[in-house]
Amino acid sequence: MRTTTTRLALLTLLATLIAAHLRADEGMWLFNSPPLAQLKERYNFSPTPEWFAHVRQSSVRFNNGGSGSFVSPDGLVVTNHHIAADSLYKLSTPEHDYLANGFYAPARADELKCPDLELNVLVAIENVTTRVNAAVTPGMTPDQAAAARRAAKAAIEKENLAKTGLRSDIVTLYQGAEYHLYQYKRYTDIRIVFAPEQQAAYFGGDPDNFEFPRYDLDCAFVRVYENDQPARIEHYFKWSAAGASENELVFVSGHPGNTSRSLTAAELAYLRDTRVPFMQTILKTYEVRLISWGARSLENERRAHDDLNNIQNSRKVYDGRAAALLNPAVIAAKQAEDDALRAYAKTKPDLADTLTAWDDIAAAQKTLQQNFVRSTLLEAMPLSPTLAHIARTLLRAADETPKPNGDRLREYRDSDRPSLELALFSDEPIYPDYEIVKLTEYLTLAAQQLGPDAPDARALLAGKTPAERAAELVNNTKLADISYRRQLYAMTPQQLAAAAATDPMLALMRAIDPAARAARKINEEQAEILEQAHAKIARVRYAKDGDTNYPDATFTLRLSYGTITGYDEQGRHVAPFTQIAGLYDRARQHQNRDPFNLPPSWAAAEPRVNKTTPFNFVSTADIIGGNSGSPTLNRAAEFVGLIFDGNLQSLAGDYYFDNTDNRATSVDARAIIEALRTVYHADALVNELLPQ
Amino acid sequence: MRTTTTRLALLTLLATLIAAHLRADEGMWLFNSPPLAQLKERYNFSPTPEWFAHVRQSSVRFNNGGSGSFVSPDGLVVTNHHIAADSLYKLSTPEHDYLANGFYAPARADELKCPDLELNVLVAIENVTTRVNAAVTPGMTPDQAAAARRAAKAAIEKENLAKTGLRSDIVTLYQGAEYHLYQYKRYTDIRIVFAPEQQAAYFGGDPDNFEFPRYDLDCAFVRVYENDQPARIEHYFKWSAAGASENELVFVSGHPGNTSRSLTAAELAYLRDTRVPFMQTILKTYEVRLISWGARSLENERRAHDDLNNIQNSRKVYDGRAAALLNPAVIAAKQAEDDALRAYAKTKPDLADTLTAWDDIAAAQKTLQQNFVRSTLLEAMPLSPTLAHIARTLLRAADETPKPNGDRLREYRDSDRPSLELALFSDEPIYPDYEIVKLTEYLTLAAQQLGPDAPDARALLAGKTPAERAAELVNNTKLADISYRRQLYAMTPQQLAAAAATDPMLALMRAIDPAARAARKINEEQAEILEQAHAKIARVRYAKDGDTNYPDATFTLRLSYGTITGYDEQGRHVAPFTQIAGLYDRARQHQNRDPFNLPPSWAAAEPRVNKTTPFNFVSTADIIGGNSGSPTLNRAAEFVGLIFDGNLQSLAGDYYFDNTDNRATSVDARAIIEALRTVYHADALVNELLPQ
Repeated sequence: MRTTTTRLALLTLLATLIAAHLRADEGMWLFNSPPLAQLKERYNFSPTPEWFAHVRQSSVRFNNGGSGSFVSPDGLVVTNHHIAADSLYKLSTPEHDYLANGFYAPARADELKCPDLELNVLVAIENVTTRVNAAVTPGMTPDQAAAARRAAKAAIEKENLAKTGLRSDIVTLYQGAEYHLYQYKRYTDIRIVFAPEQQAAYFGGDPDNFEFPRYDLDCAFVRVYENDQPARIEHYFKWSAAGASENELVFVSGHPGNTSRSLTAAELAYLRDTRVPFMQTILKTYEVRLISWGARSLENERRAHDDLNNIQNSRKVYDGRAAALLNPAVIAAKQAEDDALRAYAKTKPDLADTLTAWDDIAAAQKTLQQNFVRSTLLEAMPLSPTLAHIARTLLRAADETPKPNGDRLREYRDSDRPSLELALFSDEPIYPDYEIVKLTEYLTLAAQQLGPDAPDARALLAGKTPAERAAELVNNTKLADISYRRQLYAMTPQQLAAAAATDPMLALMRAIDPAARAARKINEEQAEILEQAHAKIARVRYAKDGDTNYPDATFTLRLSYGTITGYDEQGRHVAPFTQIAGLYDRARQHQNRDPFNLPPSWAAAEPRVNKTTPFNFVSTADIIGGNSGSPTLNRAAEFVGLIFDGNLQSLAGDYYFDNTDNRATSVDARAIIEALRTVYHADALVNELLPQ
Repeated sequence: MRTTTTRLALLTLLATLIAAHLRADEGMWLFNSPPLAQLKERYNFSPTPEWFAHVRQSSVRFNNGGSGSFVSPDGLVVTNHHIAADSLYKLSTPEHDYLANGFYAPARADELKCPDLELNVLVAIENVTTRVNAAVTPGMTPDQAAAARRAAKAAIEKENLAKTGLRSDIVTLYQGAEYHLYQYKRYTDIRIVFAPEQQAAYFGGDPDNFEFPRYDLDCAFVRVYENDQPARIEHYFKWSAAGASENELVFVSGHPGNTSRSLTAAELAYLRDTRVPFMQTILKTYEVRLISWGARSLENERRAHDDLNNIQNSRKVYDGRAAALLNPAVIAAKQAEDDALRAYAKTKPDLADTLTAWDDIAAAQKTLQQNFVRSTLLEAMPLSPTLAHIARTLLRAADETPKPNGDRLREYRDSDRPSLELALFSDEPIYPDYEIVKLTEYLTLAAQQLGPDAPDARALLAGKTPAERAAELVNNTKLADISYRRQLYAMTPQQLAAAAATDPMLALMRAIDPAARAARKINEEQAEILEQAHAKIARVRYAKDGDTNYPDATFTLRLSYGTITGYDEQGRHVAPFTQIAGLYDRARQHQNRDPFNLPPSWAAAEPRVNKTTPFNFVSTADIIGGNSGSPTLNRAAEFVGLIFDGNLQSLAGDYYFDNTDNRATSVDARAIIEALRTVYHADALVNELLPQ
């Protein structure tokens, strides 16, 4: 319903692109290339190198797709409830539902160990562009060049891992114009300290998700351990008791997942016409099934709850993307940018080799489009059941391990192996009835999208109905047994082939593996073509505009900045702060009905809680999915808020940033303290955050 | 999850088709060709012609897609709550929500008049096959033949309407092998007498829909008026105070909407690969949107509630159809049947002209498939907003009225005009915000499915985003005003063109009308080809098997029969009756949470209500959507139950009937009395149903 603001946003967007300079507050900046000039010019703020090093090392990446930060010297980490939810779900049983009911460990001994959570801290960045590109010699074909680059990257990662013991990932930045080696300290013993009830964290549920005003305590605290002791942490954020004010400059340090701001018009059209609509269909298909199945019993609902939340969140994201892409001005503006860059390149003889880049990209979109449904269903298998992924991981581990490290599929390289094993041997519960529900839906989609008579669909269905086949596969596989998985993980491909004779899930994943790998290979070849073409366009952009830009997001650490400020929506002004009072008001407007019901703890605390405490706030910091759990900081690098969402308008941020109405949403640091103290009586935790 | 029963069902199905005779209890029989032999042979029951005439004339068709029956001489009609829901919704306001809270008129003067409900009673049937076919002369092309048949049908309908004053519809039966003239007495002054709270009628909501055991009071009572007085009714069903027992023979007299049991394998493949998956996508897209928008406020929820219930019901139906069609044995069995009929035809020289029928049908599927997305989005416009339909109706009425009656689009013929005007001038509330939500979703689907650069999509979107365009269309049309609609309805096409200049919704529907009509014309041409081909196949079937069959359902009155009996599901036996006690148990299992919350009236009545009263029951009667609200009758044609649903297994009934587990679900007549008496204190109504 953003009819009045959208057109304004587009005019602004067009102006931005034509002016070819960055709007105020835009950008997800590299820590080794921060926006010093902008901060100085706009805010008269000049942070020191130590400031950046401190913020970087106080920031934490959650390997399940979120961000967090250290907030005490004893390894205490704050993140979102919805980032910790995956662990809370896996730790829950029908008897103890920590996701629904929350958890608090008053003493360290009470803290609950997560089955498979990994946290990373970025301790060093090294630019290795020259070394990676040196692997390419003049006579090589594009395929050979790509292989040489892959081998060089794998070698650098492996060498650095051996040398430092640090997780070593080469990050491709600026669409291949640069390669940086990111080195992480890994933490794998993570324990839950505190989580509120999900209803407090996600008050308003899906209907209020991506909306503002909001009233959510979307926070959780975990602690990292080393050698069974709380880790001693040098860099952590001091918790601000005073909080931040309207119009104050704030920073967000976190891990935006990915953005598509450097895409060409042809790529946006591919997303608009193929990828986004298909993802919308898949997500809505699963959403409806999980709601319907979940509602048959309270235990069903508990089992499907976390998946459903994730699906509904993704659905809003894809709906927002579809809306942005169906705005004709967005692709028109992008086309104008493409044309301007190409026209510039034509005027520079040393950019002559870049002129084919746009057509190469357009050609790749056609190939991707033709390969899309098969690669999505057979290789990506979105939302498919856990047991299928386990089977594939075991089979591919056996196939990939004997290969040279650099030739392996990405997730089977030595540097990724610890994370892979953590997931593979996780003791998260697997419920056969729920697995059957998800697999039935997956098989139905596959039969309908591939065509039931296609060879791949025949292999998936084996002449049965989706429901029959799903039951057969789930009820007859032994992969729910972790010790069996460990046995299989030690096997050769030949031994696994024999095991597949008595395990239909292994047999199925083995049968479709050649087709899945072939579909993946096509995508990876096109990705390589795109990387080369985008590296050329990045050269044109650099030549034209200089080093005034930041790379697209890559789920690596970035710094954003902005101010706490409201916005206009459908002719009304939306103020930047909400207060705790608003939570109680909204619950009453909805007659306390789900998902607007107060958790009992909040209902009981109403007489005591300070209702004027700021609860949630919005800022112009440029964030996107993956930033969830990021700290919002003041100039002194003190913790003033916790990023947990953006508004609906921020969903267009995948393609462009417009600070007229794109807003990042934080839980106010003061609300967290007020809740811990008054609602949850978590005094030990408050004392750790605000030592006397 | 019907893995064990499905395979059994298929073996049974194959056996059925090969044996080429009907299974026990199968069939939706014509009242002028009832299953006398089967009833005699299996149940030793030989109803008289008077029995059939009485049942027929006591049965009522609801023009909004359901069934009902007279149950008192004073025009009292019983149907389902979910059939009356449309009227309850239209009568509701933010102050009086009859849908949610129920309604009871203790006295006639309190009865609430429905804005646009029409009831039909079938008073006569005449076989006019010879007269329709006589219009076709030997030299005609197929197109000319179709036009001649259409003209003949329209002439017969018009002539009969003029002669009798009765609604006169020619029904195409046996895929065009027969044409029968159905003559209905129309009632258009319909008033609500009683409806329970929707939560009592639809306890368990979407999760329990199409499931059994059930505990639903899905009933409502309306009264037909003539000349502002309750109509005097000669034929009505006596209400059985004793109810029916397990294994008892029962009948269902109602209006099954449509079935696809005579389709060829090529037609089932088209449904499986094109139509059903697309409808699943559309339904789930709208379902997710209405849930999400509805949850933003209680008033949103009320506005979207009835649409959402209908969509969720359709979604279960299409999911059930998809599951049946993705069973390879279903299409294999159908192919075997096609082959057997074709082989038989090859042996009979007088059937030589039928041999092309199967290939003609297969060719038509290709054309339908190519035309499917455009015709669905531009012509059928499923789930699109009310204002768009109003605009189209006005424009087409002006275009069609000057044409000869027989040349008009079906819904603009004289015989259909009263129903059209009833809908067009209905004062059902139109909420702009809700219209915008639905229209945004429709425009998004259209842009994605047609491609945003397709000419039709450009006309729909006019260079704007779906949300902008929807707001512009809804906020600037005056069609919500009934008096404006009446003005427009009197205009010529030229005057309407001028009016469209200031009304964007009229302008849009006018702009896409040529494309919509063209897409419809292709479908109608193919339907004519299919009708001809199926008439040939019907001749083959008749020659081979004789008159042992019933035609596919056509939303016209049919008689089904069967026994009250349970079934097996996933290895468990499901008993045929539930009791009122089960309602209270299920609510408690779900902690009384929506949609398993007891209505306050039932919670309060718990100490008084007789919990051993039979509540819902299942029978093997062969029904499908459209049968909702049908009476379930005993041999004495007494009312013993009210059809309101089938089980999940019954959804395959669109394509085949299998009485191992296909079950029709009724509200027990005894539960209705117990509830009226004890829960609702509707003593006057009880006394009318069970006069002393």
